[in-house]
Amino acid sequence: MNVAILGVGTVGEAVAKILLKNKKLIAARCGEEIVPVVGVVRNLNKKRDADIPLTDDINSVINRDDIDVFVELMGGVEEPFRVVSEILKRKKAVVTANKALLAYHRYALQNLAKNTPFGFEASVAGGIPIIRALREGLSANHILSINGILNGTSNYILTSMMNEGSNFKDALKKAQELGYAEADPTFDVGGFDTAHKLLILASIAYGVHGDPEDILIEGIQGITPEDIFFAKDFEYSIKLLAIAKKSEGKVELRVHPALVPQNKMIAKASGVTNAISVVGEVVGETMYYGPGAGGDATASAVISDLIDIARDSKSPMLGYKAPFELNTLELLDRDRIKTKYYFRLKVEDKMGVLAKITNLMSENNLSIDSLLQKPKDESEYAVLFFTTHTSLEADAKRTMELLKEQEYIKEEPFMMRIEE
Amino acid sequence: MNVAILGVGTVGEAVAKILLKNKKLIAARCGEEIVPVVGVVRNLNKKRDADIPLTDDINSVINRDDIDVFVELMGGVEEPFRVVSEILKRKKAVVTANKALLAYHRYALQNLAKNTPFGFEASVAGGIPIIRALREGLSANHILSINGILNGTSNYILTSMMNEGSNFKDALKKAQELGYAEADPTFDVGGFDTAHKLLILASIAYGVHGDPEDILIEGIQGITPEDIFFAKDFEYSIKLLAIAKKSEGKVELRVHPALVPQNKMIAKASGVTNAISVVGEVVGETMYYGPGAGGDATASAVISDLIDIARDSKSPMLGYKAPFELNTLELLDRDRIKTKYYFRLKVEDKMGVLAKITNLMSENNLSIDSLLQKPKDESEYAVLFFTTHTSLEADAKRTMELLKEQEYIKEEPFMMRIEE
Repeated sequence: MNVAILGVGTVGEAVAKILLKNKKLIAARCGEEIVPVVGVVRNLNKKRDADIPLTDDINSVINRDDIDVFVELMGGVEEPFRVVSEILKRKKAVVTANKALLAYHRYALQNLAKNTPFGFEASVAGGIPIIRALREGLSANHILSINGILNGTSNYILTSMMNEGSNFKDALKKAQELGYAEADPTFDVGGFDTAHKLLILASIAYGVHGDPEDILIEGIQGITPEDIFFAKDFEYSIKLLAIAKKSEGKVELRVHPALVPQNKMIAKASGVTNAISVVGEVVGETMYYGPGAGGDATASAVISDLIDIARDSKSPMLGYKAPFELNTLELLDRDRIKTKYYFRLKVEDKMGVLAKITNLMSENNLSIDSLLQKPKDESEYAVLFFTTHTSLEADAKRTMELLKEQEYIKEEPFMMRIEE
Repeated sequence: MNVAILGVGTVGEAVAKILLKNKKLIAARCGEEIVPVVGVVRNLNKKRDADIPLTDDINSVINRDDIDVFVELMGGVEEPFRVVSEILKRKKAVVTANKALLAYHRYALQNLAKNTPFGFEASVAGGIPIIRALREGLSANHILSINGILNGTSNYILTSMMNEGSNFKDALKKAQELGYAEADPTFDVGGFDTAHKLLILASIAYGVHGDPEDILIEGIQGITPEDIFFAKDFEYSIKLLAIAKKSEGKVELRVHPALVPQNKMIAKASGVTNAISVVGEVVGETMYYGPGAGGDATASAVISDLIDIARDSKSPMLGYKAPFELNTLELLDRDRIKTKYYFRLKVEDKMGVLAKITNLMSENNLSIDSLLQKPKDESEYAVLFFTTHTSLEADAKRTMELLKEQEYIKEEPFMMRIEE
């Protein structure tokens, strides 16, 4: 089976190298040799660590008849969409690690692919075979919920803040120095990378449509050591979560930092690792844990797809071979989300302020579950922490807006969700 | 696709019920309806909670031409082997949850099955899709090691002993009352169930042959609250582990209780859950966690195999489509195992005893890593705990034999391995 690698960066190099190094093992596992015959790059002058012929002429490569599978590792959205569409029109198989491509075009690609193999295990959670787990392993189940830690950069930063008491900025800087965060980290710490992956998982679980713009996405930039202080005191971890679940006959999708009880298995995934908890109606909770990024881990997933194609496995791309009522479910309006909320407020340390806040919350249908006042240090203000019983997102949002207007609030108030 | 269920106990009932209840979802996921058309039971008079026609005539069922897949849930080894062999000779697909059948006959069944689908996801770790993870998800990797908690009963008992300080007998009694342990628990707590599952996983990872009798199997019955005391003090958990790894160009397989550092992810699987850590040469460590038993969780796995068969997926039964040098690896002699060891010794509290023990250890090539003497309570004897640096199993075993002969040892000495 001949393979072309479109984009020979860290992952492409690793794919070429491992196909060569584990040639015999892979041939035994799938019954034929998988041979990387050509790599396509933009800049032929840049040195690559891969022993395959290179070209910068992508159009000549995608029209070659001797290539059986194209591995798309170009990055971007519209250009790879154009390229992959052309390949699928020629009925040639595709494997990709490109989560943005799938977050925007997965259904268009499914329609183009029909029965042509299209692998994308590497697009979510790197080396963890979560696509297969959802699409094949748990296929007997209605999926009740997915909770995922899908971004290693953010999990590394949150783990640092938790373990070392550092603030966001210092933890980010350390992550950048170690190569775990990009110079511009917005895509990772802002929750966008996680949202792309969530949409892919939600398609397999629910067949639900939707672009990243349609769902609630919040990043971890607003978390301070004071939130860490509260989390530790109340035995929570803080995790950037991707959440999918059925709710009110619709599908709820959201990405945001959340307080998660420390004794939950998913809370124990620390550092750059990823973890995904899936609750199936029949099976109960299963969890998947491992490296979510890195050239080798991603290449492991890419090659697993190539092996499946060589084995002539025939799983439907997004998990469904026939239309199903579940697949027509709409996204739940983000204001209709129901969960527990955490508020951090810096306030004037004066008589009556607490009563004003609790009144405001109660007028907006928020019922307080716990309250903590942090001992004052150098600041002249007091820090108050509230958690609520299960409430409506619209109520929590309106309360945040109202709090911002109060003269006794001395710093932008901060709200986070609690997932128990 | 018509399915016959051979054996309608807890799992068989659940399979029939879920196929009915999730009929539409399953049809959408695999493109056709999966219909349980008949169940075979030994005793027709016993009431079953499954809405399918029942018969006690297995031979008439396995010869029916209208049945596409046979689900073997009979229990036992030789009788199901006979039945499944006959079915495979007729080129009809088989799905089984029977780990004992596979532990003894997996290669014979593979030879019979050839290209006939044979699913056994349910045979290891219940609802966790670990067979697929190894066979498909990690197929690009040489597997460096597998560490599994594969028996929920044992993990429940060990968790109780750890959390509540109870002894083995009381923890077992509680597990029996809750339905987590059989009246005769030997198969579970003795490590035999775990060994069957380990052989199945090791076949996919290494293609290695071997029966349960060929590998090191120790149970958890000898563990006392004193071991728990030591484990807590040194921040270990105690887990019944299934271990497979390549070592000296052979494959090391063993089942025994082990001290595992509490901060390792696998140590965090508590109660009746299962967890499997797999280290792949390319991907690094991934871990899989979830319910290892129970009718519904097992049925979830059985049905996932049925769906794969309906989808016409074509993974090779034990993961290899062609012969490979790895598959000729032999089992490592159990005396050649190398790991760290823990000894618990009850001794006379006399001058010179410690020197005698440390001399005996050093004469037998065991180098001591740590030593703890438990404060004496009601007993007139002292309890000593030793851990060693990495040593040879043969040396540890010989030392145990010699210790038993010493007059200053006042109770059967106990040895456990440490897996870090």
